[in-house]
Amino acid sequence: MIIVLNENGVKKGIAALKKSFADKTQVFVNGNRVAVQGAVKDDLPTEILKATKEIITDVPAAVQGSRLFHPQDTIIHTPHAVIGGNEFIMMAGPCSVESEEHVRKMAAIAKKGGAKIVRGGAFKPRTSPYSFQGLGEEGLKYLREAADENEMDMITEVMDDEHVEMVAKYTDIFQIGARNMQNFSLLKTVGKTNIPVALKRGMSATIDDLLNAAEYIASEGNSQIMLLERGIRTFDNKYTRNTFDLGAVPVLQRLTHYPVIVDPSHAVGEWDLVTPMALAGAASGATGMIVEIHDEPQKALSDGPQALKPDTYLKMAQKVFEVHQVVNGK
Amino acid sequence: MIIVLNENGVKKGIAALKKSFADKTQVFVNGNRVAVQGAVKDDLPTEILKATKEIITDVPAAVQGSRLFHPQDTIIHTPHAVIGGNEFIMMAGPCSVESEEHVRKMAAIAKKGGAKIVRGGAFKPRTSPYSFQGLGEEGLKYLREAADENEMDMITEVMDDEHVEMVAKYTDIFQIGARNMQNFSLLKTVGKTNIPVALKRGMSATIDDLLNAAEYIASEGNSQIMLLERGIRTFDNKYTRNTFDLGAVPVLQRLTHYPVIVDPSHAVGEWDLVTPMALAGAASGATGMIVEIHDEPQKALSDGPQALKPDTYLKMAQKVFEVHQVVNGK
Amino acid sequence: MIIVLNENGVKKGIAALKKSFADKTQVFVNGNRVAVQGAVKDDLPTEILKATKEIITDVPAAVQGSRLFHPQDTIIHTPHAVIGGNEFIMMAGPCSVESEEHVRKMAAIAKKGGAKIVRGGAFKPRTSPYSFQGLGEEGLKYLREAADENEMDMITEVMDDEHVEMVAKYTDIFQIGARNMQNFSLLKTVGKTNIPVALKRGMSATIDDLLNAAEYIASEGNSQIMLLERGIRTFDNKYTRNTFDLGAVPVLQRLTHYPVIVDPSHAVGEWDLVTPMALAGAASGATGMIVEIHDEPQKALSDGPQALKPDTYLKMAQKVFEVHQVVNGK
Amino acid sequence: MIIVLNENGVKKGIAALKKSFADKTQVFVNGNRVAVQGAVKDDLPTEILKATKEIITDVPAAVQGSRLFHPQDTIIHTPHAVIGGNEFIMMAGPCSVESEEHVRKMAAIAKKGGAKIVRGGAFKPRTSPYSFQGLGEEGLKYLREAADENEMDMITEVMDDEHVEMVAKYTDIFQIGARNMQNFSLLKTVGKTNIPVALKRGMSATIDDLLNAAEYIASEGNSQIMLLERGIRTFDNKYTRNTFDLGAVPVLQRLTHYPVIVDPSHAVGEWDLVTPMALAGAASGATGMIVEIHDEPQKALSDGPQALKPDTYLKMAQKVFEVHQVVNGK
Repeated sequence: MIIVLNENGVKKGIAALKKSFADKTQVFVNGNRVAVQGAVKDDLPTEILKATKEIITDVPAAVQGSRLFHPQDTIIHTPHAVIGGNEFIMMAGPCSVESEEHVRKMAAIAKKGGAKIVRGGAFKPRTSPYSFQGLGEEGLKYLREAADENEMDMITEVMDDEHVEMVAKYTDIFQIGARNMQNFSLLKTVGKTNIPVALKRGMSATIDDLLNAAEYIASEGNSQIMLLERGIRTFDNKYTRNTFDLGAVPVLQRLTHYPVIVDPSHAVGEWDLVTPMALAGAASGATGMIVEIHDEPQKALSDGPQALKPDTYLKMAQKVFEVHQVVNGK
Repeated sequence: MIIVLNENGVKKGIAALKKSFADKTQVFVNGNRVAVQGAVKDDLPTEILKATKEIITDVPAAVQGSRLFHPQDTIIHTPHAVIGGNEFIMMAGPCSVESEEHVRKMAAIAKKGGAKIVRGGAFKPRTSPYSFQGLGEEGLKYLREAADENEMDMITEVMDDEHVEMVAKYTDIFQIGARNMQNFSLLKTVGKTNIPVALKRGMSATIDDLLNAAEYIASEGNSQIMLLERGIRTFDNKYTRNTFDLGAVPVLQRLTHYPVIVDPSHAVGEWDLVTPMALAGAASGATGMIVEIHDEPQKALSDGPQALKPDTYLKMAQKVFEVHQVVNGK
Repeated sequence: MIIVLNENGVKKGIAALKKSFADKTQVFVNGNRVAVQGAVKDDLPTEILKATKEIITDVPAAVQGSRLFHPQDTIIHTPHAVIGGNEFIMMAGPCSVESEEHVRKMAAIAKKGGAKIVRGGAFKPRTSPYSFQGLGEEGLKYLREAADENEMDMITEVMDDEHVEMVAKYTDIFQIGARNMQNFSLLKTVGKTNIPVALKRGMSATIDDLLNAAEYIASEGNSQIMLLERGIRTFDNKYTRNTFDLGAVPVLQRLTHYPVIVDPSHAVGEWDLVTPMALAGAASGATGMIVEIHDEPQKALSDGPQALKPDTYLKMAQKVFEVHQVVNGK
Repeated sequence: MIIVLNENGVKKGIAALKKSFADKTQVFVNGNRVAVQGAVKDDLPTEILKATKEIITDVPAAVQGSRLFHPQDTIIHTPHAVIGGNEFIMMAGPCSVESEEHVRKMAAIAKKGGAKIVRGGAFKPRTSPYSFQGLGEEGLKYLREAADENEMDMITEVMDDEHVEMVAKYTDIFQIGARNMQNFSLLKTVGKTNIPVALKRGMSATIDDLLNAAEYIASEGNSQIMLLERGIRTFDNKYTRNTFDLGAVPVLQRLTHYPVIVDPSHAVGEWDLVTPMALAGAASGATGMIVEIHDEPQKALSDGPQALKPDTYLKMAQKVFEVHQVVNGK
C-alpha cells in the first residue's frame, strides 16, 4: 500500500506512519509518498487518514522501483556522466581487460566515439571453468588508470559478494551480470554500498523478475540503479545469440523510474549485427548504451566475434547520437 | 548446388544444364546463376564445367530466396509504391475493414502520414470461432475504393486458397498471416499468381522456417515476396503480446534478397508501445512498416488496443521517416 | 454464460433459451447445460431464471470444449477402437506411406504391439517445398488396405480443406498437423464431417490456443475430437527436436472432456529417446499414444531418425501398457 | 582431448602425460582415461602414443562430466541412501523448514512414503526481498534433528559461498538452486568440499549449460554431483509454473554419468498436477525424485500451492516405485 500524504501534512504523516508500522513491517518514504509493506487501509489510524490525499492499493512487490512510489525519473550522477537525463550515455570498451596498454587504447577510442564511461571485465563469468576467467584486481587497476587518463568513469562486473569491497575501491559503477541477476546475496551486498549499480536482465527473466531483483538492491538502501536489456533466450538462436527485447525499454520506462540502458553486443553476439541493433536500441528510447569494442577482435580473450572495430564503432556511435536526437526532438 | 557461369557462356551453359537436369530435378536460373536441386559436382558434364566460374555447394534448402542465388535486392513495384528501394514504405490502416465510410477515412489519414499502401482485413483469422470474422468480399470492395480514391495501393490478408482468386480481383498485395505461414497449400496458390505477397513470420518460426515458407511461394513462380517481422512468442508476454525480434531484420537482409517489413502493432499489442517500436524498427534497417490506425480504438471491431489514433500516427510516421534518413544517410 | 437447468425443466428451458437467443447469438446444448454466447444474467427472462439451477458466468471462449459445459469425458468410437475410455489406445505406423507392401508390413507390426489404429501420411507438410510431399490418394488407398487387412482403423493427415472430401473416403480419423492447428478454414471443413479429428497442438500454441482451435471444429457440429501433445518449441533443441510438454496432459484433462493423446516421436525426434518419453507419456495419464515405426529407418522417406524399429517398438509398447495399468489401478 | 591408455601402460602413461602437460594445462584422470585440456594429438610424445589405445578428440568443454571421460555411472553414497544405483530414491519434505515440530512431523511422513532423504529450506531464494527468507541456521538444526530422528539423510539449499562452511556442518547433500546454477563462485566453493551436491537446472539453462555448471564443481575436486530437472521457462505458463522437460532425463543420462533426479513440484507449481508429473518423471528413467509435502498447504510459509498433503504423497510414492519397477524390469 502506498499512502500519498497531503502536502501540508507530510512530516507529521510520515512520523505517524513510522510510529504505527516501523516495528512491524518495512516503511519506505519518497517525498509525500509512503509505502507500507503488507498493510491495508483498515490498519490506518484516523489521524493518518486525515492527512492522506490518496491511497494506492494495487502496488507491485517491487514497490521502491515503481513509478507509483517514485513518479519522477531517477538520475544518476557519476564524476563525468549523468545517466537518466536528456543526454544519451555511451559506455564502451573491451569485453575483458586484457592488458594495461590495451585497455588504455580502447578507452581512448571509446572516448572519441562520445563515451563517458569505459567498460571492461576483470572477473569474467564464463560458461566453462576452463575458459579465461579475467585478470582479477590487476585488471581493475588497469581499467581505473585508463578511465582516469581519459577523464572518463569506469564500469566493471562484480561476480561475488566477497569481492564487492575490493571492486568498490576502483569502480564508479558496479555491473551485475545476467547470470547473477538473482544472486540475492550479491544484490544485497552492492545494495549496502553507495556506488551506482547496472543490473543486467537475466537470460529468461521477466520484466517483473528484473524489477524484483532491483528491489533487492534498493531494499538495502542503494537506489542508484540502472537496468540493462541485453537480449533474452528464445527458440531462435541460430543467427543471433539472444533475442534483443527492445519492447522491454518502453515497458520498463513506464513501470519504473530507473534509467534503462541497452547492450546490443550481447544481444546479438555478432559484430555486423551490432550497428543496426544499436540504432534500434537508441530509437526505442533507451537512455544509454553499453557496447564492446576491440582493435583486433580475432585475438580478443573473450567474445571477440561481437566486438566492433574502432572505425565501425565510431560510425555507429555518431548515428546513435543522431537517432537519439530525432527521437527526443519535438 | 549453384553453378555460376562465365559471363560469355551463360546462354549455352543454361541450355546444357537444363538438358542434363531438367527432367530429373528442379533447375532455377537467375542471370548467370543456376541452382540445381540435389545435384553434386560430379554430376556435371565437362562442357558445363568449362563454362563455369564458380560452384557453390553449401546452399540452403530455400535456394531461390538466398543471396547466393540472387545477390541483388528484390525490388517490388506496385502501382503507387516501390518496395525494397531506398525509400521507406509506410503501410497503414485499420485492423479490420469496418465500413465503407470508415476505411475511406482511415485511408486518407494513412496517406497524410506518408503511407502509399492502405491495409485492412476483410477475412480475419481469430483465435476464437465466435469472434468477428470480417466483412468478406464486401470489405475488399470498400478497401479497393478507399485505396483508389486516395491514389494508394491496398494490402489485405487471404486466409484460404479457395479465396485467392477472389481476393486477387481486388488487392495489390496479398498478406499471408502468421498462423498461415506454413499453410503450404495457400502458399503454393498465391505462388501461382503474379501479385506480390507479404509473408508474415509465424509466432514461433525460425528464420530458416520463414525462408522455407517463402520458398513455397517462389517454387511456384512468384518471387515478388516481402517478409514481415511481427513479433515472436517468448516466455515474457505480460506487458507485450509478443517479443519484437528486430535482430531478424539485418539477419534476413544478409541471407535473402526479399524486402523486410516490420509490424510494430502486432509485435507489442498496445498502442503506447507502438511508437518506440516503430522507430526501433526503422532504425534496425527495415525497408518499410505496416501499422494499425483507428480514430476510435475503443470501438474497433478487432485489435483496438494496439491501434494508433490519427494524431499519434502522424507524429510517429514523421519521426520514422527521419530515423530512416539518419540510418541510411552517409 | 452457461445456464444449468433444473432436471425437471430441461426441455422447456432449452426451448425458452433458444426462443430468446437463437436468432441473436449461438446457443449450444449439452443435456441440461445451455451455453449462450455473449449473454449476461440480466438478459434472461424470469421464466428461464425459475427453471435454472445454476448460472456459470466465468466461461472460456472455447465453451463447447470446456468441462463446465460438458463435464463427462468424450469417448470416441471408431470401428475397432474406443478412444477416451479405460483402455490405453496405441496408434502406430510409418511417418509416410511409402508403398503398398511397406505399409502393410508396418500395420502388421503395429498390430502385434497392441495398436488398434495404423498411422501413415499420404500428404506430408514438409518445411521445404523440395522435400518428398507424399504419395497422395494412392497412399490413402494403401493405408486403407493395410488397415482393413489387419482389422485396424486408420488415421492420416489432411492438409487442405479441398482434400477433406477425398480423404474422408478412406480414413477413420483425420489428423490435423501442428502447422495447421490454426488453419481455420481446414478446421471448419473437418468440423462439417462426422469423422473423428485428432488435432495436434501447434509448436508454440498455448493450452488456450489449442482449445480454441478445437472449438472451430466443434462450432461446425463435429465434437469427435482428440487432442495431441507432440512437443513444443523452446530455447533448447540441441538434443531434442522439441520439448515434450507432459504437464499439458493433466492440464487438458482438467479443462476439457476431449481425449488426450501423446506423440513421443515428434516430441523428441530421435528414436533412442522415444521409449522413455513414451513411458512418461503413459505415466502422465494420457489416454493413448501415436508413434512412428519403420523396419529400415535409414531408408525412410521422412523422419527416419525418430522411427522405432519393430523390436524396440514391441518392447516399448508392452511396457507402456504396463505403466498405464499401474497408473490407472487402484 | 581424451587419451585412452592401454591397460598395461596406465601407470606409466599417466605419469608421462602429467610430466608433459601438468604445468601447462589441466590434466584429469579416470582409470585409464586421461583428459588433457586444449591439447592436440601432435602434442603427444611418441612414448605416450605407444601406450595409447584410443584418442578421442571430439570432447565437450565439460569433460569430467562426460561419459567419454567417465563411462560408468556415478553412484553417490550418503549415510542412509545410494543415489544412482538400481533403487529409486525418494526425497521429500516441506519447502521451508517452518519449525522444529513441523519439520519433524514432515520427515516422518516422508519416510513413511519411502523417502530416505528429507528436504527443507533454511535459506530461501525468494523473488521479492520482502518475502519470508527462511529460518537460517536454526532451520538447519531442526532439519538435522528431524533427519536423525527418522534415520534419514538431509538435503538443503545453500545460496551463498559464505554459508557453505556453516551449512556443511549440518547437511548430507548441498542443493544449489536454479537461480544460482551459474553462480560460479558458489559452485567452486561447494566443489572444494567432499559433500555431495544436487545441482538444479536453471530456468533457461540448456543441457550444455547445466553440464558446464556441474563442471565448475568437478573442477575443484568434488565429483559427487547429481543433476535436477525442475522445469524450464517457456511461452506457456498460464496453467503450469514451468514446463517439465522430461526429455532432458534420457539426454543427460546419455551424455553424463551423474545421477539425474526430477523435481515435479517446482516443474508444475500446483499440487494436483504433481502426481501425474511424478509418475511421468519416474517413467522417464530418472534415478530419483524430490517432492514437497505439507500437512496444511494453505498455511505454508512458501510454495504452499504445490505441496502434496500426506495422503496424496503416500499414494503417489507407492505408484512411483511401481512405475520405476516396470520401467527397469526386464
